[in-house]
This record gives sequence, structure tokens and C-alpha cells, in this order.
Amino acid sequence: MLHNIQQIAPEREKSIVLVGLMGAGKTAIGKRLAGRLNLPFYDSDQEIERAAGMSVAEIFAKHGEPHFRAGEKRVIERLLTRGPIVLATGGGAFMDPETRDIVARRAVSVWLHSPVHILLHRVRGRTHRPLLNSGDPAEILQRLLAVRGPVYALADIIIPGSEDPPDVTTQNVLDKLTTYAEPRRVEVKLSQNSYEVVIGPDLLARAGALMHPVLPQKQVVIITDETLAALHLAKLQASLAQVAIAHDSIIVKPGEASKSLETWGFVVSELLSRKVDRHTTIIALGGGVIGDLAGFAAAATLRGLPFIQIPTTLLAQVDSSVGGKTGINSPHGKNLIGAFHQPRLVLADTAILTTLPIREWRAGYAEIVKAGLIADASLYAWCEANGLAMLNGDAALLAQAVERAVAFKAAVVGDDEREMKPNGGRALLNLGHTFGHALEAETGYGQGLLHGEAVAVGIILATQLSANLGFCPQEDASRIAAHFTAVGLPTRINNLPAEHLLAHMKQDKKMKGGKLTFILTHGIGQAFTHPEVTEEAVRNVLLANGAV
Amino acid sequence: MLHNIQQIAPEREKSIVLVGLMGAGKTAIGKRLAGRLNLPFYDSDQEIERAAGMSVAEIFAKHGEPHFRAGEKRVIERLLTRGPIVLATGGGAFMDPETRDIVARRAVSVWLHSPVHILLHRVRGRTHRPLLNSGDPAEILQRLLAVRGPVYALADIIIPGSEDPPDVTTQNVLDKLTTYAEPRRVEVKLSQNSYEVVIGPDLLARAGALMHPVLPQKQVVIITDETLAALHLAKLQASLAQVAIAHDSIIVKPGEASKSLETWGFVVSELLSRKVDRHTTIIALGGGVIGDLAGFAAAATLRGLPFIQIPTTLLAQVDSSVGGKTGINSPHGKNLIGAFHQPRLVLADTAILTTLPIREWRAGYAEIVKAGLIADASLYAWCEANGLAMLNGDAALLAQAVERAVAFKAAVVGDDEREMKPNGGRALLNLGHTFGHALEAETGYGQGLLHGEAVAVGIILATQLSANLGFCPQEDASRIAAHFTAVGLPTRINNLPAEHLLAHMKQDKKMKGGKLTFILTHGIGQAFTHPEVTEEAVRNVLLANGAV
Repeated sequence: MLHNIQQIAPEREKSIVLVGLMGAGKTAIGKRLAGRLNLPFYDSDQEIERAAGMSVAEIFAKHGEPHFRAGEKRVIERLLTRGPIVLATGGGAFMDPETRDIVARRAVSVWLHSPVHILLHRVRGRTHRPLLNSGDPAEILQRLLAVRGPVYALADIIIPGSEDPPDVTTQNVLDKLTTYAEPRRVEVKLSQNSYEVVIGPDLLARAGALMHPVLPQKQVVIITDETLAALHLAKLQASLAQVAIAHDSIIVKPGEASKSLETWGFVVSELLSRKVDRHTTIIALGGGVIGDLAGFAAAATLRGLPFIQIPTTLLAQVDSSVGGKTGINSPHGKNLIGAFHQPRLVLADTAILTTLPIREWRAGYAEIVKAGLIADASLYAWCEANGLAMLNGDAALLAQAVERAVAFKAAVVGDDEREMKPNGGRALLNLGHTFGHALEAETGYGQGLLHGEAVAVGIILATQLSANLGFCPQEDASRIAAHFTAVGLPTRINNLPAEHLLAHMKQDKKMKGGKLTFILTHGIGQAFTHPEVTEEAVRNVLLANGAV
Repeated sequence: MLHNIQQIAPEREKSIVLVGLMGAGKTAIGKRLAGRLNLPFYDSDQEIERAAGMSVAEIFAKHGEPHFRAGEKRVIERLLTRGPIVLATGGGAFMDPETRDIVARRAVSVWLHSPVHILLHRVRGRTHRPLLNSGDPAEILQRLLAVRGPVYALADIIIPGSEDPPDVTTQNVLDKLTTYAEPRRVEVKLSQNSYEVVIGPDLLARAGALMHPVLPQKQVVIITDETLAALHLAKLQASLAQVAIAHDSIIVKPGEASKSLETWGFVVSELLSRKVDRHTTIIALGGGVIGDLAGFAAAATLRGLPFIQIPTTLLAQVDSSVGGKTGINSPHGKNLIGAFHQPRLVLADTAILTTLPIREWRAGYAEIVKAGLIADASLYAWCEANGLAMLNGDAALLAQAVERAVAFKAAVVGDDEREMKPNGGRALLNLGHTFGHALEAETGYGQGLLHGEAVAVGIILATQLSANLGFCPQEDASRIAAHFTAVGLPTRINNLPAEHLLAHMKQDKKMKGGKLTFILTHGIGQAFTHPEVTEEAVRNVLLANGAV
């Protein structure tokens, strides 16, 4: 038992705050928890009574509820600034948004969620409960639970009620606290409307609670595809229902073909037919296709609706969901129609990724490596050290990788939100993409190579081109190719005609005087824009790496 | 003659700067102009020679051209800060963007545009012209004119060259100066990317020069409709060609039906097929339909292209072209799909309006009166005093009216760019629009009433509703109706069923508890948002004003 305490206690910087209706056992469990964790225990009602010199019932009677709530907030804030404690709160405390915000910043909140018949049994005869004295207690408790449940459900941890004795419930709470990992948060800092990327396992089950603070009204429309709807929609809907967010959904066909003007028009029309207003939030539940499609629908419907991304692929989590680029394809090319429309929140549930085939993991991993190669040599070193273990399913490494890649992307986006910098800035994120797009175009988008696979080969080609032109040590180019090979990413062109690939590149980019612009590199973590690469140099690198 | 001088001199706050190639007569005409205007005359080359203690040819030979141009800029800036003068500049001075900017701020620029054979005749044998000493003078002058002509054409006034004696040309310049009216400029101040609305007669002929400073590259695509193309496109194209702006155009069918997803998709696809890049500027040449359609195409193509409005109706000049609202219609309603995409410049050519039928004038005028009624009682008073004369064709009053209405709109937009204020702010611009939209919907958009006419009736109804509810003196409501009647605007509903109109309003707005939100008024210049107008009160005002 002591062993358990020591496991938890040294890491505990935050307090534990118990919330729930009267009779849920906040004081009984709280005292036991405090004992087991070796922390001081407080009861906010008792502290208020002590400060006021009268009972809660008397404060209600004399000054009214608003006065009581204001005092309660001050007392809770004061208690939580003292350092880690266990705090049992009055049943109404967590209803106050400011109090909730204080708790969120300083504590892990735990809802002791007991059914009404248990609560009733415990509170029977307690006349000092002012809210229970005005009618039938069962009915009052039922009504309170209906109103407060969706707010209590915003707590970090929910403990389903049972008739277990307090020691058993206390152990339940301790177990949950041990496994509870606060999600990682990366801020995307923009000149206006900064937002957070929240990263961690099993966020989908808590999506409603996590997005609640950024919703202008408790109404959302989910946009997803048929495959993802089957896998994840029910869980997301349940998490929304738990915190009483009204929700509707629009489901499109999976695949790149949905990034069309037609599907976009369909989605916008569906949104309008559901009478969305300017405070309805659009949720993209899916990979890059859904994020781009739903984001552009959100951008253009009623001239801009609030928008949340729940990326379901590694690629989308580390790249496309962050930064506000949304759009659809045109017969003239990919992503040519769209908008910069920043989300209010990105929820990257790393546990979702376990449903993906390994090939998709690797494709997403290529974009993580890319971030390192552009300007974060330590991230690249991390990849060499941990990439294989991560791809083999190490959940902790996965969350770390996502966090680091998102932090990198956030910094680039924050520095160049609308890709206005002629060199450097967001443009560098296209390392490997000129080659990659040509490979995708030649093999058919979404048919031959996955985007991340095409980018992987493109990175190898861009790095080798840099070495050939004398910008980058050959050692670095070889080292990167070796790492890609080690993790199972493709590194060579599979017998495609060099002239076809060159033709795609010329269509993709404007040539000036027979020269092409490429993202090249001076070595690991040192990418740069070079506007004058000759066709000859490009052809040579294609032919030397598998093109025919 | 003296009479003429006095006419000009007292108003002249700005200097006159003569530009053009060597031999264009800048010194000869400049001296005569100075004499006639009683202003000091300077020649920038002479001033530079005096300051340097050597000839222009010697400075070129010894220090090179860049050194000379830097000194030239300093000398011109110094001369122009002294107060009004007449200044002849060296042939290359106006080529420098900074020098041009200094001239634009402090002077009226005049290009003496002589053909090469005249120039050649005049410069023959002048050996102190360094740029002429390196080859065949005719060829050199021809080449210089090709390069510099498009830049000289940015001057405020262009005097076509002739073989007239200098006194005749001087009189030409004086005549042009007398009639030259600097366009009025209203700034729309935003947190980012503020822009100007330039207002005045005959701006279209100078559109290229006026937009030149805000273009990221000298390439534009004009979007207009068949009717307007026939009337105005050639003039706009000529003005672009004059300053060497490459241009292309996309022409759609006239009318509200072009604000559709289909036409928008067509325009975007046409833009992409013309290989626009992110620095290509889109020009909307047209009324509200074209401005909304082209603006949204510009917003979404390549995630946002620079955009310029050249509104061709009074309504568009005073309202829709300013503020960045762009969009198209959906079967679910008007303007439901779109973006906030602010233009870089709005060119309101008031002379264009003379091609409009009087009914369109009146419809646009209703929006000017609306601006006054919302929050600018002095503008409303101006309307009562001058509205009829303006509608009868007084060009000066028209420019004044447009300027005042744009200034009002700019202030509202600057304060609430994205219509985020729940009350007040941009929402007030919808005074009369809830009634107006219902009238338009019932009579068929663009078929029965013009938008401005529907708004006129809507303003009368909203004002009368305000009076009925006791918010506004009946005297104000009657006064406004009297003014509308005086200028020939409709003020009553033409036998439409009240219940139909109510149904449209309920579809347009969200009803809360059987109540509707309206923009009402406390009197002239005192509009406000009222969220709780009963259906009964609305029905009564409809029935009392012509509904059945």
C-alpha cells in the first residue's frame, strides 16, 4: 500500500477536487483519499461556514445563492493556491464556469457519479441541505442530476457510483488517478484566435468535455465519412451527449474523391438545411480529406462557422489538422480551392491510431521525420532513436512524437500564418513535396503511393539533389535513406518514367528560365528554398533513384 | 488671364511636377506654368548639379546611376516640402517608386507625352544627356519610351504631345489643372490590411494608374457581366494597358442568377485554367452581384487572391463594395455561402452611374438615406437638403453623397469587421432589411422590387413600427416617409398578403418565443437592435401600410 502512495505522491503537483451531488460521498471518499495520498483534506462548505461564522443554510437564507457562490469561488481559489490538497466541493460549486476554470488549472477533478436512489439513501434526514428542503427529495435530486450531470461530466475523471463501501470507491479513484494522464497541450499562437492542440490517448471519449470551453453554443455538426462513422461516431456522440451538446452529423463517402466541388456543395447545403447559425460548431472527424473538406465547408457557410478538428490519422494529427489550411481539389489540381480557416481546437486522440494499418502509420511517420529534417535536428535524432519502437506500437512514444511534430508545425504556422513569406516559413513544410506530388500524380492520387509514402521518397530525392548540388553532405543524405529503410518507408522510385515525372513537376510549379524552385537542405534540420534548380539536375536525381 | 490665375492660385496647395522623357519640354513648359501660376520654378537636374558641384553627366560617369537617383530623390523631396512650386524632373526621376510616392503625396504630376520624332528634334546635339550618348538617339528614345511610358502614365494628368508652341501647351496644362479634381479618398481602417475607397468622376479611365500601387504584380483578371463588359470593359482594359498591367477577363451572364454555386464554380475554374498565381489580382467590375461573386471567387481560389472592386451601381458604391462581405446564394437563402474577403482598393467612378436608369439611382439613394437614419443625422439632413438635386444629376452632390455614405460604412465596418457584435455594429446596417427581404422574396428576387426599393419600403415600415411601439416620435416616421415620397421612392406595400410576408420573415430570422429581432430606431440617426418584437405588432404595421 505504501508502495502505491509513493508511486503517486511524488508526481502529484495538482490537487484533487471531488465534485458531485450531495450524498455522492465527496467528504467520505475525500478524507480517505487524502489519507492514502498523504495530502491535507478540505471541505469547501466547511471552510465557507468557518469564514462566514454561520451555516451554509443560514448563508442561503440570509444572503441568497449568488452571494454564496461568489464566496465559494473565492474560498476554492484560495484553498487550491496552497499546494496539492484533496478538496470536497459543495454540489453547486462546479456549476460556476469561473470556479470550473480555477479547478481545471489547478487540480484533477473527479466526479463521484452516484445514481439517485443511493444519493437519496445517504441524504435522508440531513436538514442542513438548503436545496432539499423545498419539496420531495427524490424529485429534487432527479432534477438536480438532470441539470448538473452534463456539467459534472466536464470533470477529468468520472467514477460511476455504486453501493460499494467508501474504501472500495477510494481505491477506484486511486486507480483512475494512477492511470490518468493529463492530455498534452500545444498552443498554436496566432495574431488572432490562438488555439490548442490537445494530444493523448482516449480523448474521443472525453471529446465533449474537452471542447466544451471553446464552443460558443452547445450545438455541433459532425462531418465524417462512412468508414470513420462506423468506427468512431458513436463514441464521439456519447461524449457530446454526456455534457449535453446537441449534435447532428453529415456522412460522406471515404476517399480523396470527396474533396470535390460537388461533395463540398452537398455538405454546405446539408448544413444550411439543418438551420445552422453562426454559433454552430463544425467538427471534422477524420483524416486529411475530411479535415480539408469540413474545414472549407465551415469557412464558407454563413461566411465562417467555428470549427474543431478531430484528426484520425497520424498524418492528419501531425500535419494537416494544424494550421488552418482547408480546401478541395479542382480538375486543375489538388487543394486549389479553399480558405485559411483556423480551428478553435484540435483533439489528437492517439489511441484512435491503433485502428490504422501499419502502412498508414509509416506514411504519417514520414511527416514527423520531415519536421525534424526541416529545422529540428533534435527531433530527427529522436526519430532515429525511437521511430522504430514507436511504429511497433509504443503508445507513450507515439504521444511524444505527435506532440513534438505538432509543436514544430505550430511554430512554423505561428510565424507565417498565411504562407506569405516568399522563402522559408510555411513553404519549407513542402520539403519533398514537389517530387512527392509528381509521384502521386503519376501513380494516381490515392491509388499507388500514400501521400506520406510519396513524400518519403520525395524527401530522399530532395536530400540527394541537395548533396549532388553540393549543398548538403552526402553522409546526411545516406543517413536519412538508411533510417527510412530501417523503418520500412520507400526510398526509391518504382520504375516510373523520368520524363513523365518532370512533366508533372513543370505543371505543378512555374518554371522561370527553365529552372525550378525546390526546397533543398544544407543538412539535417537545415532546409531552405532554392529557386534555380536546373531540369538537368532534377532528371539526374530521378534516374539515379529508380526512374527510367 | 489674371482672372484665370486667381481662380487657380488660391486653391493650389500642391505643387505641380512635370515628368516625361528628355526633350518633352518640361523646362520650357514648367517655366511658363510657374509664371502663369505665380509660383517658383525649379529643375531637379539643375538643383542636383548645383548641390554636387558637377554636371549630371559627370555624376553619372563618376558615381554611376544609382548614386544619382538617390541624390535626385532627396533633392525632389526637399524641393517639394517648401510649399507649392512648379518642378521639372529629370527623365528617370519618376521611375523610382519612392520618388513617385513623394510626388503623389505632395504634388499633381503631369506627363508631357511627346512622340519620339518631336523629342528627337529637340534633343539633337545636346551632348550633356548621358543616356543618349551610347548609341542611335532615335532607337534609344524609342526604347526609353517603351520602358518608361507605362510608368509616366501613372501621372495624374497626361498631356498628349504635339508640335504646338510652348505657350499653347502651357495653356493645355493650365486647362487640365483647372478641371482636374483629385479623387476623394476614404480609408476603411481594419486591424489588418486597411484600404482606400477612391471616389470621383472618370476614375475608370485612370483605373490602371490608381490601382498600380496596391498590385503585388502587374497581372489582373477582370470579372464582369455581359452588359457591363459592353459598356465599360474596353475603357478599363485601355487604362490597364497604358500602365502595362497584364489583364484577362471572365464574363458571366448579368443578373442575380449568376450568384449561384454553378457560376461561382465556373469562375473559379476559369481562373485556375488561366494559371493565376497568388499574386494575381481579381477585379470585380460590376454591381452587387458581380462584387459578391468575384469577391468570393477571389477569396477561395488558391486560398485567397488580392481583390479590387470597381462598383458600377450607386448601391454597390455606397454599400456592397465596402466591407468585405462576399458570397453567393443557396436554395436555402441569399448570401448563405461566402467569405469575409476585404478588397485592396475600391474605385467608385461616379461618372459611370450616369449610364444607370433613374430607378437604380433612387434604389441606391435609399441606402445613403439609410446610413443617415442609422447613426448620422447630419447625413440625413444633407439628404433632405440635396437628395432631389443629386438624383436630378448634380455630379458634385453625387460625389459628396457617395463619400459621406462610404465614410459612414467604413466607420461601421472598421468597428465590427466580421459582424461579431451581437447588437449594434454591422447588424444595424440591416435597418429596413427584414421587411425588405420579405418583400423581395414575395415579389421574386430581382423581378418585382429592386433591392434598394424594397429596403426603402422596409425603412418606412421599421420606422413606423418604432413609432407604434413608442420608441420613435411619429413626427420622425412621417418626415422620412415624406422625403422618400419627394424623391420618388416607394413607401408602401403593393397589396401583398401580410401573412406571406410574415412567413418570409419567420424563415429569414430565428424566432424566440414567438418574437422577432428587428432594427428599430429612437429617431433619425438613432437605430438600435430590438430582439423582442411581437408578431402582432409586425402584422399591424404591414396591414396599415398596404399589405392585405
